[in-house]
Amino acid sequence: MRSLFPVCRSITGNGVRQTLDVLSAHIPLERREVPTGTRVYDWTVPKEWNIRDAYVRRPGGPRLIDFRASNLHVLNYSVPVERTVSLAELKEHLFTLPEHPDWVPYKTSYYSETWGFCISESTLRSFEEGDYEVRIDSTLSNGHLTYGECFLPGESADEVLISTHVCHPSLANDNLSGICTATLLARQLARKKRRYSYRFLFVPGIIGSITWLSFNIGTVSRIRHGMVLAGVGDGGPFTYKKSRRGDTEIDRLVPHVLASRNRPYSVRDFSPYGYDERQYCSPGFDLPVGGLSRTPYAEYPQYHTSADNLGFVTEETLAESYSVIAEICETLEANRTYRNLNPMGEPQLGRRGLYDGFGPGQLAMLWVLSLTDGHATLLDISVRSGLAFPSVRDAAAVLVRAGLLAPA
Amino acid sequence: MRSLFPVCRSITGNGVRQTLDVLSAHIPLERREVPTGTRVYDWTVPKEWNIRDAYVRRPGGPRLIDFRASNLHVLNYSVPVERTVSLAELKEHLFTLPEHPDWVPYKTSYYSETWGFCISESTLRSFEEGDYEVRIDSTLSNGHLTYGECFLPGESADEVLISTHVCHPSLANDNLSGICTATLLARQLARKKRRYSYRFLFVPGIIGSITWLSFNIGTVSRIRHGMVLAGVGDGGPFTYKKSRRGDTEIDRLVPHVLASRNRPYSVRDFSPYGYDERQYCSPGFDLPVGGLSRTPYAEYPQYHTSADNLGFVTEETLAESYSVIAEICETLEANRTYRNLNPMGEPQLGRRGLYDGFGPGQLAMLWVLSLTDGHATLLDISVRSGLAFPSVRDAAAVLVRAGLLAPA
Amino acid sequence: MRSLFPVCRSITGNGVRQTLDVLSAHIPLERREVPTGTRVYDWTVPKEWNIRDAYVRRPGGPRLIDFRASNLHVLNYSVPVERTVSLAELKEHLFTLPEHPDWVPYKTSYYSETWGFCISESTLRSFEEGDYEVRIDSTLSNGHLTYGECFLPGESADEVLISTHVCHPSLANDNLSGICTATLLARQLARKKRRYSYRFLFVPGIIGSITWLSFNIGTVSRIRHGMVLAGVGDGGPFTYKKSRRGDTEIDRLVPHVLASRNRPYSVRDFSPYGYDERQYCSPGFDLPVGGLSRTPYAEYPQYHTSADNLGFVTEETLAESYSVIAEICETLEANRTYRNLNPMGEPQLGRRGLYDGFGPGQLAMLWVLSLTDGHATLLDISVRSGLAFPSVRDAAAVLVRAGLLAPA
Repeated sequence: MRSLFPVCRSITGNGVRQTLDVLSAHIPLERREVPTGTRVYDWTVPKEWNIRDAYVRRPGGPRLIDFRASNLHVLNYSVPVERTVSLAELKEHLFTLPEHPDWVPYKTSYYSETWGFCISESTLRSFEEGDYEVRIDSTLSNGHLTYGECFLPGESADEVLISTHVCHPSLANDNLSGICTATLLARQLARKKRRYSYRFLFVPGIIGSITWLSFNIGTVSRIRHGMVLAGVGDGGPFTYKKSRRGDTEIDRLVPHVLASRNRPYSVRDFSPYGYDERQYCSPGFDLPVGGLSRTPYAEYPQYHTSADNLGFVTEETLAESYSVIAEICETLEANRTYRNLNPMGEPQLGRRGLYDGFGPGQLAMLWVLSLTDGHATLLDISVRSGLAFPSVRDAAAVLVRAGLLAPA
Repeated sequence: MRSLFPVCRSITGNGVRQTLDVLSAHIPLERREVPTGTRVYDWTVPKEWNIRDAYVRRPGGPRLIDFRASNLHVLNYSVPVERTVSLAELKEHLFTLPEHPDWVPYKTSYYSETWGFCISESTLRSFEEGDYEVRIDSTLSNGHLTYGECFLPGESADEVLISTHVCHPSLANDNLSGICTATLLARQLARKKRRYSYRFLFVPGIIGSITWLSFNIGTVSRIRHGMVLAGVGDGGPFTYKKSRRGDTEIDRLVPHVLASRNRPYSVRDFSPYGYDERQYCSPGFDLPVGGLSRTPYAEYPQYHTSADNLGFVTEETLAESYSVIAEICETLEANRTYRNLNPMGEPQLGRRGLYDGFGPGQLAMLWVLSLTDGHATLLDISVRSGLAFPSVRDAAAVLVRAGLLAPA
Repeated sequence: MRSLFPVCRSITGNGVRQTLDVLSAHIPLERREVPTGTRVYDWTVPKEWNIRDAYVRRPGGPRLIDFRASNLHVLNYSVPVERTVSLAELKEHLFTLPEHPDWVPYKTSYYSETWGFCISESTLRSFEEGDYEVRIDSTLSNGHLTYGECFLPGESADEVLISTHVCHPSLANDNLSGICTATLLARQLARKKRRYSYRFLFVPGIIGSITWLSFNIGTVSRIRHGMVLAGVGDGGPFTYKKSRRGDTEIDRLVPHVLASRNRPYSVRDFSPYGYDERQYCSPGFDLPVGGLSRTPYAEYPQYHTSADNLGFVTEETLAESYSVIAEICETLEANRTYRNLNPMGEPQLGRRGLYDGFGPGQLAMLWVLSLTDGHATLLDISVRSGLAFPSVRDAAAVLVRAGLLAPA
């Protein structure tokens, strides 16, 4: 995260390529390049944006606004400019956050060609009347949209999709937290036996997910579960946003995992604004893809400002987020449907050494035997019995070993 | 309402004809006459009842009870009588309301031939021992049952049924309020473009609706939504009574309209007593017909008494009731199902000039685009999004104009 | 109950036979004998256990523990033993209840061959160091498992199953209460016209119901409703435990009957531990069989101790339990589906003498007429209308007599 923080990312350009290069050191990542002008459903891949430098200064004076100090200072996707303007004209291109006078806002103008600078309100107040030299050394020209894809095949062609956006520049929680957590998850899953195949997408927001969808329409139906990861580095409680369908396995499983932690969390119904779950859940796809964040986007003051920096996220918080996401995947992997091989009455546990009176393991075994009729998943059994998923999973494993249960 | 108040209505007779005549000045109304003796399902059209005069007096004295003062004084459907009786015998034919000593009750005896008078308890107390001349100049003989029907064809043969009872004499809320509101609605709808066809029935209670049903069995299936209007002139909160099915479009739509007004209201489950929704919802028809009232029948003390007079209803209350009913019809008209023409990912609103950041119009557009999968109605979208129906409807209209949406 | 209390029952043996002999005096009961070694699904019928005598004493001294005083003193299914042991060794075979120092626990060891004695904690404390003569004059050898079955044919081959366990020795609530109540019910039902056939099973717990199921696999599908009766003699509120399906007719009917009594009661979801409903509800059978108790098993301190004696149950409590169970059966018998023969509008009740204004009988008739569409049962109508089942049942009977209703 520290190495990725200074990179000036956008929805296109070398910042994304640099970011994917860093990730490639950790996981097997394929980089896709889609040319400017490519039609992707209702959208068109835009011109590629790159920037080398930018500043504002009094003629010949020192830089008053300096891209080198923070890439947030430039309105993302600013067209090139090299002019001398009055303070009045300059102000039409300046963005500040009056309610947080020391913070710099993060602003973009992807689909309307203009230029601008983002600065703190206190910097703005120090500007005096007079002329200002304005320079943005950017290019906006035909090129490509870049995204990364990491596919980990599993026993089954059924896929779990993990998608995270890579278009934001120096913002730590939104979304280096998602990028880094997803990368760590991919690295760990790559080392394990996997029931599901896993597909990790590192895409620019909106245009990136729509582009991926448009190129993969033939196989999206393999996606059985999915999550958009973003904003998982702040200290707030976890927030799961349900898929548009609202009742899919992931929609029941993630709240169950969150509830089992005995910490505050919240579950929200789907809404068509937020991150890229909007695209995966659009009615033409309607995929079982939810969203996992801590404090939801736009609900913390640091959101889309310079205060969302490396100090805003902590190792503990990221580790906790990783552990929750990993537990979600483990639970997905384990959430099978079994068939009781001795469904007529209870089997005689005692003669198999499985009888321990009314201990908790016993109860879990009885629940599993009672409900494994070929329809209920272990999660269903956990919900109905009120027993923790791990107890149910472990009881099922014992019963499988005893020859009393088999995958359905 | 003022001109209709003095008319002595009943389930048959000239009072109903006079009433329909008054309504005919405002709306296109067909009058139906069904002969006495006609079998209508389990019922038979009764003899027609008419009355010219009625009174009780001491022999040769002034009238102590006078039909000319109020038609409520005569037990509705009283057979003719001309006798001199003792006070004791007279009392067997007198009805009062001891708990409201100055009010006259409204009573009927449609299907059991007898006679009687309704008076105030205080009048009764003034009666002394002695003989009384009793005269009821009524006729009960073969004739017709009369009802009115106003049909407004729409783009579709699918019908909205509005039914209201016309059998009550001088009672303002029950049911001149329903008659007048329905008439105003018919007049206003007649001037508009209509998606649905509208059928207004002005029928005597029970026997009237059953008669109409028996003559229209071939076309009742066109009724897609319906409401029985009655008791909409008092100042109480609105009460919607659901249809027997309980989950039809009108059953979800009316509560939604009522809720959007931010005033107290109540929704009740169907029950097989009340007004003519009982007949429309009988199991052989099971039509999607609910009932709209303000204070439910029999739950206000003035119900079926002389206190339900022109002073009991106000112009403001009637105007409010009309406006709610009109809004219900407008919502029904607008509650279509659409199909998102660009369902793969979100469409690019910006290049159509439809992007306004996160303004409320934007949110409504995103919700509409997200849920218009050919199944959800605009009401469904309004309920799921929590957005007011008009916002959703307006967003849909904008998207239709932009070519992004089409009726399903 | 008094005559059955002293009998030393177990899952096999003469105690069960003696018990069935007593019941045979009251109801037609077939006794089944299933040989040791018979495979019944995952189980095997065990050796038959019988006991004549047992005691512990100081060499040559008086009996300190005496089977003749209470059959609870012997660990049920103890193998024969005749030895002199030290106090230390003896203690390894003694069971007490330290938290109730004057009570004797009830313990079993059906499937693990050992011996033991159950005594009060205060008795144990009086034992001094030294030798003890231990004698258990029991046999554990090839024989039979015995159970009783009482079948009462009805108009329909559809069956109501009442099952109760007969394997517990001198315990009054668990389960002489179930045995006696079921016997009384069978006797009373035998004298009545029955719509359903009734099958009463008096079986040893677990192995008995599994044995019955294994021999009746071809006909268990006739069981349309069922209940396991146990622990219905204590003074606690009734507890109904739902079947595994949870939404069967008996699962809705029993709570309705309990609610109508205006006394505290509770309804619990199915769980795979408890009495023999576990077996009837195992996934291979999944029968609509719930369980009726008063205080649930193991939730009262007297459970499985000498304190569950004849003083723990009262005549009043047993009579109340019987009356509730009988009402459940009456409600099952009456809970038919009817068809309104005049479904188009309401029938004219008045001309049939059935109109009584808005009396409660009238309302019940209107509800029945409104909902008898060939799908709703009388229980459904009772639930939806909020009217007591007997009112609905009586209204239906009146309407059947009037020719307005017929069984669907």
